[in-house]
Amino acid sequence: MSSGFRTFNPSQNTWNKEEYFPTSETALAEKLNILSLAQSIYSKLSAASRADFLKAIHTALEARKENIKGFYLKESGLSNNRFETEWTRTLSTIQLFEQYLRNQYRFEKTEKFISDSIQIQKVTLPIGPVLVLGSSNFPLAYSTAGGDTIAAFAAGCCVFVKAHAMHAGTSIQVAECIEEARKIVNLPEGIFTHVLDDGFQHAQRLCLDERIQAIGFTGSFKGGKALMDLAYSRDTPIPVFAEMGSVNPVVIDQDLSIEQQKIAAKKLASSICTDAGQFCTKPGLIFIPNGPSGENFTKVLKEFVAETNAVPMLHPTIHLNFENGKKEIASISHLKFSNSPNIQIGIEGRWAIAETNVPNLLKNKRLKEEVFGPFTLLVNYTNKEELLIGLEALSGQLTGSIFYDNQSELVTDCIEILTRKVGRIILNDVPTGVRVTESMHHGGPFPASSDSRFTAVGPDSISRFQKYVSIQQKNIS
Amino acid sequence: MSSGFRTFNPSQNTWNKEEYFPTSETALAEKLNILSLAQSIYSKLSAASRADFLKAIHTALEARKENIKGFYLKESGLSNNRFETEWTRTLSTIQLFEQYLRNQYRFEKTEKFISDSIQIQKVTLPIGPVLVLGSSNFPLAYSTAGGDTIAAFAAGCCVFVKAHAMHAGTSIQVAECIEEARKIVNLPEGIFTHVLDDGFQHAQRLCLDERIQAIGFTGSFKGGKALMDLAYSRDTPIPVFAEMGSVNPVVIDQDLSIEQQKIAAKKLASSICTDAGQFCTKPGLIFIPNGPSGENFTKVLKEFVAETNAVPMLHPTIHLNFENGKKEIASISHLKFSNSPNIQIGIEGRWAIAETNVPNLLKNKRLKEEVFGPFTLLVNYTNKEELLIGLEALSGQLTGSIFYDNQSELVTDCIEILTRKVGRIILNDVPTGVRVTESMHHGGPFPASSDSRFTAVGPDSISRFQKYVSIQQKNIS
Repeated sequence: MSSGFRTFNPSQNTWNKEEYFPTSETALAEKLNILSLAQSIYSKLSAASRADFLKAIHTALEARKENIKGFYLKESGLSNNRFETEWTRTLSTIQLFEQYLRNQYRFEKTEKFISDSIQIQKVTLPIGPVLVLGSSNFPLAYSTAGGDTIAAFAAGCCVFVKAHAMHAGTSIQVAECIEEARKIVNLPEGIFTHVLDDGFQHAQRLCLDERIQAIGFTGSFKGGKALMDLAYSRDTPIPVFAEMGSVNPVVIDQDLSIEQQKIAAKKLASSICTDAGQFCTKPGLIFIPNGPSGENFTKVLKEFVAETNAVPMLHPTIHLNFENGKKEIASISHLKFSNSPNIQIGIEGRWAIAETNVPNLLKNKRLKEEVFGPFTLLVNYTNKEELLIGLEALSGQLTGSIFYDNQSELVTDCIEILTRKVGRIILNDVPTGVRVTESMHHGGPFPASSDSRFTAVGPDSISRFQKYVSIQQKNIS
Repeated sequence: MSSGFRTFNPSQNTWNKEEYFPTSETALAEKLNILSLAQSIYSKLSAASRADFLKAIHTALEARKENIKGFYLKESGLSNNRFETEWTRTLSTIQLFEQYLRNQYRFEKTEKFISDSIQIQKVTLPIGPVLVLGSSNFPLAYSTAGGDTIAAFAAGCCVFVKAHAMHAGTSIQVAECIEEARKIVNLPEGIFTHVLDDGFQHAQRLCLDERIQAIGFTGSFKGGKALMDLAYSRDTPIPVFAEMGSVNPVVIDQDLSIEQQKIAAKKLASSICTDAGQFCTKPGLIFIPNGPSGENFTKVLKEFVAETNAVPMLHPTIHLNFENGKKEIASISHLKFSNSPNIQIGIEGRWAIAETNVPNLLKNKRLKEEVFGPFTLLVNYTNKEELLIGLEALSGQLTGSIFYDNQSELVTDCIEILTRKVGRIILNDVPTGVRVTESMHHGGPFPASSDSRFTAVGPDSISRFQKYVSIQQKNIS
């Protein structure tokens, strides 16, 4: 019998009392065995029936809000405010997809060729059962009933969720809501499956199981790439949509007025530090012009950052990785490094800001990589050319932002580079706070995501889990 | 200096006199060096301007029809009729895409959020330069100005074509037309690049070059999978759309009347043998019911096949592979094997039909794999259950066909399995002769194609080479 595991309460720096047990091998095999039948039933459902299922999930979640909140808070260390934001986002995503299925979802296009009495109908079909891995930094919106799960359900796919071990309690609560909803709309067992594991074993096994047909993941590059490798190693490779984060470069133009600098700096400080900067869209690299304008901006930004309060990180491993990340950055020469006061109260994410210039950025690979937590790297640029070289040196990114007053050539040139490098360009705003709408693209070129052709957010994300079949018909005689 | 190579004239079983030289390393490097600039210019073109480019290619090709035909015939051994069909298909694809760009192509969707004055615009962008590898069996429609190239141009991508060595002359003619068109619409060098090679070196090198952002391929599983592996091995993996063929199962229902059997058998015999069966959609496996009905169908089918004339295969290697494939099938026990008369005139593809049953099909992996050429495997089934087991045992397929009189449970059950297994279901018709229309899906689950979410045919194929960026705007003050 495998041993149990516990979740961690970051606010109190203690382990929660509830004990969870990894799903047994036997139970896992049984759950996989009923998947094909469930998928064949769910595949046949109309878009309206899938919408009814989403609506029932919405209702079930609402009824259980207080229970979910209790687990969420004690398993994440995130604030009440953050819970409310993420809760609203999760529910409004479900509603948006429900409405999309009812009003816009296109199931087929049909053409008739009179000349030779052939009719062809192109049909949108679910790709098959989808494995979703719960994320650490979005216990709701990118976990059990999050964007990947809802997109897969909308596409007509059965969903197999492997809960994030550190959010096991939250995940079980949400999973029970989905199961309640499934029963209410009278769908068979197996449409949704929830498994627990405190290691990588189940995820690896599921990723290699021939019954799983696609994978949705939000997390680190290391985790996402490992899943991609496994999925590609199968006899029949399957698509993985992995959203793997990035440094999300920000460009500060020197034409900002003092007042505009203050507005930008305040927004950025909040974007870097809120919820200990544990967002894939946290601005982790800011290009700042040399000279008085840039110096003033840096000063103001640091002041705003210094005013923020350190809050606990999601769990001890993330905190440890953040501390190590800061040390790695600090060890690189030609780098100014300021840190927040070194007072250790539990596992707070203590902010840090490092300063360098474009030549150093080009030389050091580590400076171009994400440090997950309340950290940002300020990169001074001497002129437009140097700025563009710096931007060009970055790999694929989820976002790129520019703060400016006038749409100068610098802005146009930055946009030109960013259209190749990023999934979302933000003009005069911060990258955090991804809006769940039809026009949102949340993804970006590798390594920000596994495939720049798909988004993790908005109704377009359904197409990650869809395939197509043409049905061509002719009378034999 | 690398040595030259020649193309082969299958009709005369001789090597053509023209000598071609692989593009030199230096020339290749130069062509790659101008790619970024060309892509940045082409990216900015409107859909209408891309349509103008396609129209100019169409015009240039039409003007050079006779030259192209000359090379086509002497480099492929294919018939005049086949040239005309493929020519029409190639030109009508260009026209279809041109019209699609002018009338339907959606570049962006914009949303405005009044409450906080944010505007988000989701823009469709080219994924970047695309490598297209000329196919052996479609010297026009899946080569230099074929479906992949035109889809990539429509998406706004520069195209790098590596000609199929055995169609070098045809490919050069077509490439010159594209270059003429490029000059007429006043686009810079590098939008289109054409390289020659008689080995795999250039293809491998290009597949690994960081400037190439996607790959289009039509050919064998071995070739497609090798490209997928290379593309995945890069620091930044890129999408490969490989259409890799399949056995294209056909089901014969026992309710066909004698007259219907005759119609089906005639169509199938032609589909198996036309152009030496060198189609990715050739029906390579036919499920036939045991008993008098099936026996009659088999007899009639064999008679029609025996009436066909052997025609040359595309080149000596394909012919050799076909002969070896037939031997492999013949060596498998419990297999009836008939072959067309063993008269050796050059490199004709001499048809062969093998007969087996479902239990043997299940046991032998080779029987479930494609034999490229005029060959089909007849698989007898005793009842519906056995038929379904046989279908279920097949891997991903481009197509699956059913010939029947009444829409019985057998038909419904076959369709249910085929929606999971194939990219196109054909009711009462043969799989060859893919129609280029909006409702066509030409692809299918791995290993028929590399990704069941995309098609190689029709305007939807543009999305293989597109990515998306959201541009989010807010006033700073």
